[in-house]
Amino acid sequence: MTYTSHEVHLKSRPDGMPQPENFEVASVEVDEPGEGQFVVRNHFMSVDPYMRGRMRDVKSYTPPFQIGQAMDGGSVGEVVASQNETFPVGSFVSGGQGWREYYISDGTGQQQIDPSLAPLSAFLGVLGMPGLTAYAGLLAIGEPKEGETVMVSAAAGAVGSLVGQIAKIKGCRAVGSAGSDDKVQHLVDDLGFDAAFNYKTAELHPALAEHCPKGIDVYFENVGGAMLEAVLLHMRPFGRIPVCGMIAHYNDTEPKPGPKTLISVIPNRLKIQGFIVTDYAGMAPDFHREVGGWLKEGKIQYRETVVEGIDNAPSAFIDLLNGVNTGKMVVKL
Amino acid sequence: MTYTSHEVHLKSRPDGMPQPENFEVASVEVDEPGEGQFVVRNHFMSVDPYMRGRMRDVKSYTPPFQIGQAMDGGSVGEVVASQNETFPVGSFVSGGQGWREYYISDGTGQQQIDPSLAPLSAFLGVLGMPGLTAYAGLLAIGEPKEGETVMVSAAAGAVGSLVGQIAKIKGCRAVGSAGSDDKVQHLVDDLGFDAAFNYKTAELHPALAEHCPKGIDVYFENVGGAMLEAVLLHMRPFGRIPVCGMIAHYNDTEPKPGPKTLISVIPNRLKIQGFIVTDYAGMAPDFHREVGGWLKEGKIQYRETVVEGIDNAPSAFIDLLNGVNTGKMVVKL
Repeated sequence: MTYTSHEVHLKSRPDGMPQPENFEVASVEVDEPGEGQFVVRNHFMSVDPYMRGRMRDVKSYTPPFQIGQAMDGGSVGEVVASQNETFPVGSFVSGGQGWREYYISDGTGQQQIDPSLAPLSAFLGVLGMPGLTAYAGLLAIGEPKEGETVMVSAAAGAVGSLVGQIAKIKGCRAVGSAGSDDKVQHLVDDLGFDAAFNYKTAELHPALAEHCPKGIDVYFENVGGAMLEAVLLHMRPFGRIPVCGMIAHYNDTEPKPGPKTLISVIPNRLKIQGFIVTDYAGMAPDFHREVGGWLKEGKIQYRETVVEGIDNAPSAFIDLLNGVNTGKMVVKL
Repeated sequence: MTYTSHEVHLKSRPDGMPQPENFEVASVEVDEPGEGQFVVRNHFMSVDPYMRGRMRDVKSYTPPFQIGQAMDGGSVGEVVASQNETFPVGSFVSGGQGWREYYISDGTGQQQIDPSLAPLSAFLGVLGMPGLTAYAGLLAIGEPKEGETVMVSAAAGAVGSLVGQIAKIKGCRAVGSAGSDDKVQHLVDDLGFDAAFNYKTAELHPALAEHCPKGIDVYFENVGGAMLEAVLLHMRPFGRIPVCGMIAHYNDTEPKPGPKTLISVIPNRLKIQGFIVTDYAGMAPDFHREVGGWLKEGKIQYRETVVEGIDNAPSAFIDLLNGVNTGKMVVKL
């Protein structure tokens, strides 16, 4: 018996914002597992902003996707056939074989997950890579102290929504920016942010002055562009800026100028530090214990935007870049 | 008896590059010292790039100079009259009363200096504020490790020339940029830099690739502008950028765009951190011991550009902003 798996190939490299025609869905057969192998049926796959970088043909911290081949990324699924005792049929795994329905594995890079802890999709979000990104970036680089103000952009996204909630748990004022009034309301009403604003309709400087009246001690950077330029003038002395992403620039066809206000790092003694979540794998045990605990205690809420079916994965990814999602964007397979 | 002192007033705030007419020299009388006071005759005064910021009417880490009043800044001088036992006649002090020939003090902010250690003017440079700036910024923020590459801009200046030499002492490859072929030769021939280039005539990317073949681990930033934009693409993973100054921007009449390459902080996990020397006063004892020792052992060389007479202090400052000096720019009074 074989498994018919649909998978998404990169058909051509996007120029600017990706378009549906940059992708195509192919059908492949996945064999029965050999000795030591097992077959996973993915239940969910992740779409994440960093994948845009992998669609460029440049060497970076993750290798570029190849034209005409299946892409990959975060996934969670169920073992449906196995000749591997560690991963028996019926067990659940998270792995890096997204953008496809089935795959065969020898266990490399696969982690067993306990579906009684949280819904499966949470292992792609709050308990997965975006969760660790928020946890490590905020705590290891941002080093928030009680009473400080933590500002986060793309605050209604998978990472940002956790940054604000951890900031609250640490006794900080949490302020977020997001791209719609609904998201702003969600941040304040559901996630407990102290304040939030819609960057598309607000004037940035008055909004930052109003919502961060003492200034900003930690700015968790997800977007770049005009927001970073504005925030730099609202940072308090010795402020920290963990740079997780700059989604405003991911579809730039030419590099855009940086912030005019960068020189303020000197008088205000600011630290701007980029990071990649994989460098903080050592924090994963603390992350699982702490964030898992907060989740169980109801101290952390999360929302997902779920798209159905592998055929819709490319449009889910494009919607993600356009900020259509609230919380983690996942594709149910 | 009184002392006739000439002092430099800020006559008007410069718009762009300062001009001689922004300054005027006034004559004032300094009285005999009262109880607990003493009179200092300045031998040298300092002109430093940071003073440009104080000519703007904006709140910053140092208060702005006031129109029609004497400016201030680093100075070294000799006590010529005293009613203060701690500062007897004939002793030497460094203080913050530059831009004038004489001043009266109660000792606040005055440090006694030992003129047998080094020529007086060195206490404005290699053993003074610029020296501590280089030492603290490089070691506390740059954290250079043996075998790494340290690049410094404005490398022939008071700060940059020490940064490169300390980098060499720490076992690093030291590379500098400067604004003339003479300065470049001085860096390599006299100061022991491994390589240097003239940023006015070199193509930045090829020059950086040639002189920093393994990439840059620490970039000590003094200039901003095109150099920072270029250097960001040559940084090695986990590189550090202590930001001491951005002299390319000090005379901007409007804020200029930042580096197009700023997003590279993410894939390369770079740290960009601004600092002010006064925050590192706690490192001063180590600085004096270490740099004083290296100076005595001949491991550190320094050069000065000395301008004579208070009437020439404004033009010395303007020349400094134009990069006319090699090493520390001081005015002999």
